[in-house]
Amino acid sequence: MARLLHPMTPVSFERVRIDDAFWSPRQRVNRERTIPQIYRQLQQTGRVAALGGVWSEELRQRGTRGDIVHLFFDSDVAKWLEAASYSLALHPDPALEALVDDLIARLAAAQQPDGYLNSWFTAVEPEKRWINLRDWHELYDAGHLIEAGVAHFEATGKRALLDVVTRYADYIDSVFGREPGKRRGYCGHPEIELALVRLYHVTGATRYLNLARYMIDERGQAPHYFDLEARARGDDPANFWARTHQYSQSHCPVRAQDEVVGHAVRATYLYSAMADLAAEDGDVTLLAACQKLFQHLTTKRMYVMGGIGSSMRNEGFTSDYDLPNESAYAETCAAIALIFWAQRMLRVDLDRRYADILELALYNAVLSGVSADGEHYFYANPLASDGDTHRPEWYPCPCCPPNLARLIASIGGYLYTQTETEVAVHLYVQSAATLQVGGQVVTLRQATQYPWQGTVTLTVNVADPTTFDLSLRLPGWCAAPRVTCNGEPVDLEPSTIAGYARLSRTWNDGDVIALEMPMPVERVFAHPEIRADLGAVALRRGPIVYAFEQVDQSAPLHRLALPADAALAARFEPDVLGGLTMVEAAGLALSSIDWDDTLYRSTSPPAVVPCRIRAVPYFAWDNREPGPMRVWIRELGAPARGPQS
Amino acid sequence: MARLLHPMTPVSFERVRIDDAFWSPRQRVNRERTIPQIYRQLQQTGRVAALGGVWSEELRQRGTRGDIVHLFFDSDVAKWLEAASYSLALHPDPALEALVDDLIARLAAAQQPDGYLNSWFTAVEPEKRWINLRDWHELYDAGHLIEAGVAHFEATGKRALLDVVTRYADYIDSVFGREPGKRRGYCGHPEIELALVRLYHVTGATRYLNLARYMIDERGQAPHYFDLEARARGDDPANFWARTHQYSQSHCPVRAQDEVVGHAVRATYLYSAMADLAAEDGDVTLLAACQKLFQHLTTKRMYVMGGIGSSMRNEGFTSDYDLPNESAYAETCAAIALIFWAQRMLRVDLDRRYADILELALYNAVLSGVSADGEHYFYANPLASDGDTHRPEWYPCPCCPPNLARLIASIGGYLYTQTETEVAVHLYVQSAATLQVGGQVVTLRQATQYPWQGTVTLTVNVADPTTFDLSLRLPGWCAAPRVTCNGEPVDLEPSTIAGYARLSRTWNDGDVIALEMPMPVERVFAHPEIRADLGAVALRRGPIVYAFEQVDQSAPLHRLALPADAALAARFEPDVLGGLTMVEAAGLALSSIDWDDTLYRSTSPPAVVPCRIRAVPYFAWDNREPGPMRVWIRELGAPARGPQS
Repeated sequence: MARLLHPMTPVSFERVRIDDAFWSPRQRVNRERTIPQIYRQLQQTGRVAALGGVWSEELRQRGTRGDIVHLFFDSDVAKWLEAASYSLALHPDPALEALVDDLIARLAAAQQPDGYLNSWFTAVEPEKRWINLRDWHELYDAGHLIEAGVAHFEATGKRALLDVVTRYADYIDSVFGREPGKRRGYCGHPEIELALVRLYHVTGATRYLNLARYMIDERGQAPHYFDLEARARGDDPANFWARTHQYSQSHCPVRAQDEVVGHAVRATYLYSAMADLAAEDGDVTLLAACQKLFQHLTTKRMYVMGGIGSSMRNEGFTSDYDLPNESAYAETCAAIALIFWAQRMLRVDLDRRYADILELALYNAVLSGVSADGEHYFYANPLASDGDTHRPEWYPCPCCPPNLARLIASIGGYLYTQTETEVAVHLYVQSAATLQVGGQVVTLRQATQYPWQGTVTLTVNVADPTTFDLSLRLPGWCAAPRVTCNGEPVDLEPSTIAGYARLSRTWNDGDVIALEMPMPVERVFAHPEIRADLGAVALRRGPIVYAFEQVDQSAPLHRLALPADAALAARFEPDVLGGLTMVEAAGLALSSIDWDDTLYRSTSPPAVVPCRIRAVPYFAWDNREPGPMRVWIRELGAPARGPQS
Repeated sequence: MARLLHPMTPVSFERVRIDDAFWSPRQRVNRERTIPQIYRQLQQTGRVAALGGVWSEELRQRGTRGDIVHLFFDSDVAKWLEAASYSLALHPDPALEALVDDLIARLAAAQQPDGYLNSWFTAVEPEKRWINLRDWHELYDAGHLIEAGVAHFEATGKRALLDVVTRYADYIDSVFGREPGKRRGYCGHPEIELALVRLYHVTGATRYLNLARYMIDERGQAPHYFDLEARARGDDPANFWARTHQYSQSHCPVRAQDEVVGHAVRATYLYSAMADLAAEDGDVTLLAACQKLFQHLTTKRMYVMGGIGSSMRNEGFTSDYDLPNESAYAETCAAIALIFWAQRMLRVDLDRRYADILELALYNAVLSGVSADGEHYFYANPLASDGDTHRPEWYPCPCCPPNLARLIASIGGYLYTQTETEVAVHLYVQSAATLQVGGQVVTLRQATQYPWQGTVTLTVNVADPTTFDLSLRLPGWCAAPRVTCNGEPVDLEPSTIAGYARLSRTWNDGDVIALEMPMPVERVFAHPEIRADLGAVALRRGPIVYAFEQVDQSAPLHRLALPADAALAARFEPDVLGGLTMVEAAGLALSSIDWDDTLYRSTSPPAVVPCRIRAVPYFAWDNREPGPMRVWIRELGAPARGPQS
């Protein structure tokens, strides 16, 4: 628990210059296609015009019918502002900056004298301010505005939006809390808690940290605030449409929670803030709750590609091992929030299990959320499709597109965390990072073709010899990593703690660490309680989980099977979607040629014919010819193996 | 086609005295439990009180809200009257007869001066008579009333209900047809067509046959009657809620139909009437359509246990090979109607494929529709359940319970069909049948423990030696049947036509035919286009399809697998649900013991542990401890077999 008192700090994306064959093109698409496309959608749907509450009668009609602008659309704009700010930080763009400034001006102009700032509850239903925290996302909106203000300030140095959200946060602080006269409320959709911690970090004002702590601690206390406010509105709490406060993780105090339940994005935003508070306060009880929840999530309720929240019904969790493939919800935002949470866990508990999940979600469940052209999005990410699942351009509730945009724009911020004496490397991306450690400016250069190849060369540049620990993540997916330092093998056994090889030395300019991670294609098997995957196998190579798309097969997808002993070959295909590694195997296809007009027969099962089968990275599916897809493929001829063998 | 001109006639159930270890207890439960229970439900739901249109204000409220009495509830009463009549024929019961007479009196009293008779459209919406044949089941109701009238007359000799429905049929004949001034309509839900053929049979009046023929021939003609009547009501036919006239098999003329589509009960009632007409008229074009439709149904769209209509959405057919297990609709009424159709096909095309399907549906998809206690019913018959599927006592639309009751009460009528010179035996049930053939009274006695044992001894009793063909069905499920006549082996090769062994001889009193049908437990494999069944196997023994219920297993059901080479043993269990044959095998259960907190792993698939697995007849499931069930079980270790091997 020593780390808990000295939590690590992420190295900001602004200090990490990415020049990577995998990520640089994706960041360019994000900058040149996604961010402009989202802005156009915000504009076309009336969000820009209505921002801050400039609400025409036409928009009022459309908005209240719910067909274009939803109740909490401020958050869509705020997430776009955050994404655009990150983009501006690394790629100045006066036109984009003008759009950002315009939105900020609209927000500033709309802020109420008391500091309140919410488009819907200013223009459409001003009489309903704060009366339904359970359902109406009012503080969630505030959270995203605060995150945008922090991001904008950090990225551009401009205070305009930060000042607005600071005033708003101060107003919120005056409304909510345990003090007499305040409302003891908190939001049905966690978000503002982690935003307030960010605001505290950038302003140093402890009242924001205190407010976040209050909201975390108050959550789930009895009498239940959401029930009290329901009665105050004249509603019977028993009629709550979601039926249970598990939906918003307010069914009990957060420290008593040990199973991930309810709406998956709410859950992971909450857990992110809990991890933040654990770090800030050195709160071991909060850390323990986070650890239990992370363990439960990743050992009972997570898809193989890092998607979480299996059900559309509650956009969230159901029961252990209930992970259907075709109907998988696995919302893109939930996978993004899982990354937020995992990064925060790494701050206080440097263990590769968090980074492994962060990486898994990032390269699979998150990246699948956006098309190769950067302008189409998955909200839900199924693991199997009959062929009618495609990324649309937009959603009535478009939470995922700007969430993707802000993450991809700031991906450099997930590579490293550090203290004064240690740098931990979590992700392998070709890049140059400049940071302060051991009292010196240190540049860390990674050269790699990750995730397609497992070789990483890390060069240290320092003006003067500098002493610090360099902790390299040895991914959990890698059975036999090898590390050399200036060509000398490093004995990983004694130097590895919780999956990180800690190289403690005084570094000289030009020192080179080489990390070799063999990347065979591997079969992945699911726990036998996951009914959807019984008898089937998935393929994984390094951090990449694969999928089978009809376009790559010569027989109908559902008839394919993979022999248990078939060799699996990886091949980089430079011409497929900008270059990616595909997997090939000698598969089998069930044949119907001797079935004639037979529907059932007792003579023999369907015969099989040899058939090359190919798999693409899951994130890349639905970017070529539309058709069926599945992650899990039937395994044929698996030997029966006893548990002792 | 010679048979077509001399169609066979079913031997009435009244002439077949069943004394069978399998069927007699089921008929007793039907008589003592099911028929009384349905009557109570008809009474409690207000149907008895409202019959004929005696409609209290309270009932009007309840009825028009649709929560108790549906639009076409006359058919529920009519099917009960039919079932009760059959029961009275074999088991006189003054109390039951009084209930029957009371209902008939209510109907007679309610018949309108013009002959019209419909509770709803007399009492609730009299102004809407005949304006929506597409949706409102008015002629369907009439059909069931007619069937009840015929059945009541045949069973009891009383004319009261027959006279009522004859007047009603005459009125319908005056309303519908191609003559000037008549409506060129027909019912959206076929039923009256086959009822009119029955009415023709019992009255000899050809106008009923003509009316049935008109309705069959008019169906699907352009301009489409349902579109015309929709416009006449002021509706746009394009807004038809079912979207397509395939729903009611009126998308094209019946002779042009070659794929089973739409609502499964509508389809099979229609096809039954088409087969009737083919028989009456010697109509080879109708017969050809029926043959094509039967072939399509049974080779592309039927469940392994004889259930049909896979989707709840349209209560019917979807696309070829779309046969999901958990969501299987497989309505009990549809399986019953398949029996009606198959029997009619046997009349004109003596081929065992019809009797095989009749038997399959009867012993599996139909019998599953009623609980062992006779008072709970499945409407849908899924082939897999997570454990939350149970038979309720009643349904808002309770079409299945009385349909089951009338079938089980009259099951003796499905054993034989005959001409003047031939008797065909379709089902094996211990019984004594007395019939006229070859100018003589002949008694055929079957002694058998079918379906649990495959031995049938058939004794012929005649006063004088009598010449006729005795055609024994050799079931398609039986690979090697053996027949002896008075102890002498019969060479089946030359004597078997279309699956019937035709024994042509002059029969002496006491002649004994013995039929031996070896009944091994067999694995059944599904066509590789049935995605739901890939890699899985079902078990069948004789006509009985098996299911695996959790109550019989020592490991969670979904984890079980059946090795491809496991021996399958049948054992009669006298104490299970009155006695039934279970199947046992040395199975395997996937083990989670070496998974700890692992959700996915690449080292090896789940280990397996030996595990006895047991299966019960599908029809018997959900009669003991509630729990998961599945018909298809994963096969483990199936050898890969090329199509040429």
